Amino acid sequence: MEFTVSQIALLLGGEIKGDGDVKINMLAKIQEAKPGQISFLSNPKYEPYIYDTQASAVIVKKDFVARKPINSSLILVDDPYSCFTALLEEYHKFISFQKSGVENPSYIGENCKIGEDIYRGAFSYIGNDVTIGNNVKIYPHTYIGDNVTIGDNTILNANVKLYANAKVGSNCVIHSGVVVGSDGFGFAPQADGTYKTIPQMGNVVIGDHVDIGANTVIDCATFHGDSTKIGNGVKIDNLVQIAHNVSVGQNTVIAALSGISGSTEIGDHCVIGGQVGIAGHLKIADNTSVGAQAGIGKSSKVGSKLFGSPAIDLMNYHRSYAIFKNLPDITHRLKQLEEKMLDLQTFRESQ
Amino acid sequence: MEFTVSQIALLLGGEIKGDGDVKINMLAKIQEAKPGQISFLSNPKYEPYIYDTQASAVIVKKDFVARKPINSSLILVDDPYSCFTALLEEYHKFISFQKSGVENPSYIGENCKIGEDIYRGAFSYIGNDVTIGNNVKIYPHTYIGDNVTIGDNTILNANVKLYANAKVGSNCVIHSGVVVGSDGFGFAPQADGTYKTIPQMGNVVIGDHVDIGANTVIDCATFHGDSTKIGNGVKIDNLVQIAHNVSVGQNTVIAALSGISGSTEIGDHCVIGGQVGIAGHLKIADNTSVGAQAGIGKSSKVGSKLFGSPAIDLMNYHRSYAIFKNLPDITHRLKQLEEKMLDLQTFRESQ
Amino acid sequence: MEFTVSQIALLLGGEIKGDGDVKINMLAKIQEAKPGQISFLSNPKYEPYIYDTQASAVIVKKDFVARKPINSSLILVDDPYSCFTALLEEYHKFISFQKSGVENPSYIGENCKIGEDIYRGAFSYIGNDVTIGNNVKIYPHTYIGDNVTIGDNTILNANVKLYANAKVGSNCVIHSGVVVGSDGFGFAPQADGTYKTIPQMGNVVIGDHVDIGANTVIDCATFHGDSTKIGNGVKIDNLVQIAHNVSVGQNTVIAALSGISGSTEIGDHCVIGGQVGIAGHLKIADNTSVGAQAGIGKSSKVGSKLFGSPAIDLMNYHRSYAIFKNLPDITHRLKQLEEKMLDLQTFRESQ
Repeated sequence: MEFTVSQIALLLGGEIKGDGDVKINMLAKIQEAKPGQISFLSNPKYEPYIYDTQASAVIVKKDFVARKPINSSLILVDDPYSCFTALLEEYHKFISFQKSGVENPSYIGENCKIGEDIYRGAFSYIGNDVTIGNNVKIYPHTYIGDNVTIGDNTILNANVKLYANAKVGSNCVIHSGVVVGSDGFGFAPQADGTYKTIPQMGNVVIGDHVDIGANTVIDCATFHGDSTKIGNGVKIDNLVQIAHNVSVGQNTVIAALSGISGSTEIGDHCVIGGQVGIAGHLKIADNTSVGAQAGIGKSSKVGSKLFGSPAIDLMNYHRSYAIFKNLPDITHRLKQLEEKMLDLQTFRESQ
Repeated sequence: MEFTVSQIALLLGGEIKGDGDVKINMLAKIQEAKPGQISFLSNPKYEPYIYDTQASAVIVKKDFVARKPINSSLILVDDPYSCFTALLEEYHKFISFQKSGVENPSYIGENCKIGEDIYRGAFSYIGNDVTIGNNVKIYPHTYIGDNVTIGDNTILNANVKLYANAKVGSNCVIHSGVVVGSDGFGFAPQADGTYKTIPQMGNVVIGDHVDIGANTVIDCATFHGDSTKIGNGVKIDNLVQIAHNVSVGQNTVIAALSGISGSTEIGDHCVIGGQVGIAGHLKIADNTSVGAQAGIGKSSKVGSKLFGSPAIDLMNYHRSYAIFKNLPDITHRLKQLEEKMLDLQTFRESQ
Repeated sequence: MEFTVSQIALLLGGEIKGDGDVKINMLAKIQEAKPGQISFLSNPKYEPYIYDTQASAVIVKKDFVARKPINSSLILVDDPYSCFTALLEEYHKFISFQKSGVENPSYIGENCKIGEDIYRGAFSYIGNDVTIGNNVKIYPHTYIGDNVTIGDNTILNANVKLYANAKVGSNCVIHSGVVVGSDGFGFAPQADGTYKTIPQMGNVVIGDHVDIGANTVIDCATFHGDSTKIGNGVKIDNLVQIAHNVSVGQNTVIAALSGISGSTEIGDHCVIGGQVGIAGHLKIADNTSVGAQAGIGKSSKVGSKLFGSPAIDLMNYHRSYAIFKNLPDITHRLKQLEEKMLDLQTFRESQ
């Protein structure tokens, strides 16, 4: 990638102050940028860096007034932050979609419909009856089971595993080691103390613009015709467990090492911290926020903020925990009161 | 799979009420079943569904008395639940064991003994001196190290990794991304603050009828001749960590994201919740039940029910936690008492 | 491996007592050793075993005085423990570096520099512009992205995934399923409630003598030129999450299922227990020790010992938790005091 400042300004709908012909080949933080790189200034506390930066260009607010001379070309926009993230996204696409063609050996089954501009890395495996959209990138060692469907522009990094019948939307990024569609953890207890495996015959349906972090697991639904569902725009971090028949609403974010138990429904726009556990068969309402390491045992109301294990309201937890840390003092005060009480009682009886 | 109701009734030893010639090709929940599907009714609260279901057949209790007309054929049995799970199991086997033959390229080393009706997916790897029973299914990208033994009817899904010398029993299902036999986390501290890796030379021995969830890891034992042991009928969920030299007793169940530290022995018929941590060198007795997110730091007695971190008796934890949530009130009452006490003391001294 | 006791004594700089010609082919614990094996005695409480052991040789302290006859040959050294770990290490190297040559099919891209005595297992993948040192062992299904560098004597077990631009030092052991360099979990919230993926363009730099457990994930840094850094001698257990831009200092140890959030810096010689969560942008000072399941929300001082969630000083936590377990008794005492107080007040008012 190499663009001039003018080309970038045109892309962002911004106004140029300085040299528009300077060439840009990379993005960087303002305090670390080097010549040939573009940065941005949004938070005023970073303003001092703009007078020293080696960045060839900086994206700034329209109303930015420099208090000292600046060496970089400036691009003036309404919202430098979102312009910079847009540039990052363009750059990422540019990088991510570079690979194309088929490396050998790779395996493809029968009756597959494969779109255009595909990358199929060496040792990738595509089963039978698979449908893959345009511009999909399938890195080495990725396994796509029978009857899987994948939308346009989705990236499956090295060693993604999609069990049979999974459906993945468009513009998704799935990272290495992710498993989609493994059996749910369902076992029917028998009279002799053993368990019979309940076969898991449903599938997983993943929406568009979903990101799934490395080594995360999403189990399939139990019954044929049912699906474990991941809504559009959901972002799931690494090493997360999503059990059978769970549904996760749109634009919900789940941090690393969290586990969602079977059949729980999570609403839209929720934020689930790291190492959170959510029990099964619950309804977590829209906009619920769950603090790291919380254990959720009950359904939640819209906009709840939860913390602790078992989780309660965030503020209430902090109030109680502040006292918990002081419990030795509490017991000391209690003991003192008991002594004084004994003293008073003795006094009273003595009268 | 397509069977008549009569054939299924014969299999289950049940009696038919209605048309025995109807064809069945799938199993489903009673509230969601469609024509051609079979369901069951066990829990009386689901009875209303039987009068509306589109299921072609329903398995019911022998003494079931319909209060309205039913369109489905009925199969009358002693225990509809276990009959249905038996059918599910048959169906699962039917689905799971469909694959057979060798896809290319795949790799196989020297001196291997391979049974009949094997599936070896493309890019599967079998090392030297490996012994594999009959009807074993090895999906693509699965790695089987040197000197591994695998029993009959075991399924290794895509990308299972068995390090050298592992022994896996018969009728097991191992899911994608599972690692069996990686090095235990053992490091000998040196005088200069560094650690020397203690080589891990034991293996892992897995019994029969064991299910292991996706991306779970089971480390090998430290010493040659020792084994990390997973008993018959054990069910392990996704993303679980089983450290070196652990032994897990028969029919114990471990939910997702739990970790068992080195050399701990877990008894038979235990139920370990999700995200549980168990410290090393403990003995967890038979029938112990551990609540989600608990942290076990001590050995347990038979039948214990544990909760909290560090874990204590479940009921005691709940009693204490109920008060924890009320601690601001407790301190308020304490403060009031202190004021009253001061008041009384002042009064006494004034007399 | 088969050596005489004399050869081993020479290697360890020890003195022989007994037969130096006995042949040794394995290491074992003193209570389990068999003929042909060597063991050690360091901790005096294991002394009784030395009189019964079947070990052909035992490494003991120079000043060890036998109180009964011993059948094994003895090797007398200053520090039996470290001599034994040294032997274990030699043995491990011997085992680990047995594999060599190239198995087919395997894949290698363009412009790679590959050292000598390499093992490249079947289905291993090496991208373009990769540099690999001498004596590196690349097991089957391992993926090495473009522009990766790997130092001498490093072992990548089956199915390791190194994203593009990762740098791995020498003498490292990386276990199956490890993902190095996946995207950090960074999403820019947009006005419409969706998230825009912030492309992650940095890399991961791993030092020398680092061990990484199975299915652990280390995300790359966000900006080009930045790195997520793992210092020399770091030991990371299975299923650990290391987020973008984290740095882990030398000789720090992190147990299974722990998660370190973005941009946190962990010092040297820290010990992080299992299932620990550490929030983002913190500084964990050198020699900090964190108990299992703790949740760290604040930066720590050198030598801190932390426990609980949110974590506080270990001893303080235990003091408070001891009272927590007794809270029903505390409330009972409080209630009694309230009753007595009421009684006293009534008495006072009655006078």
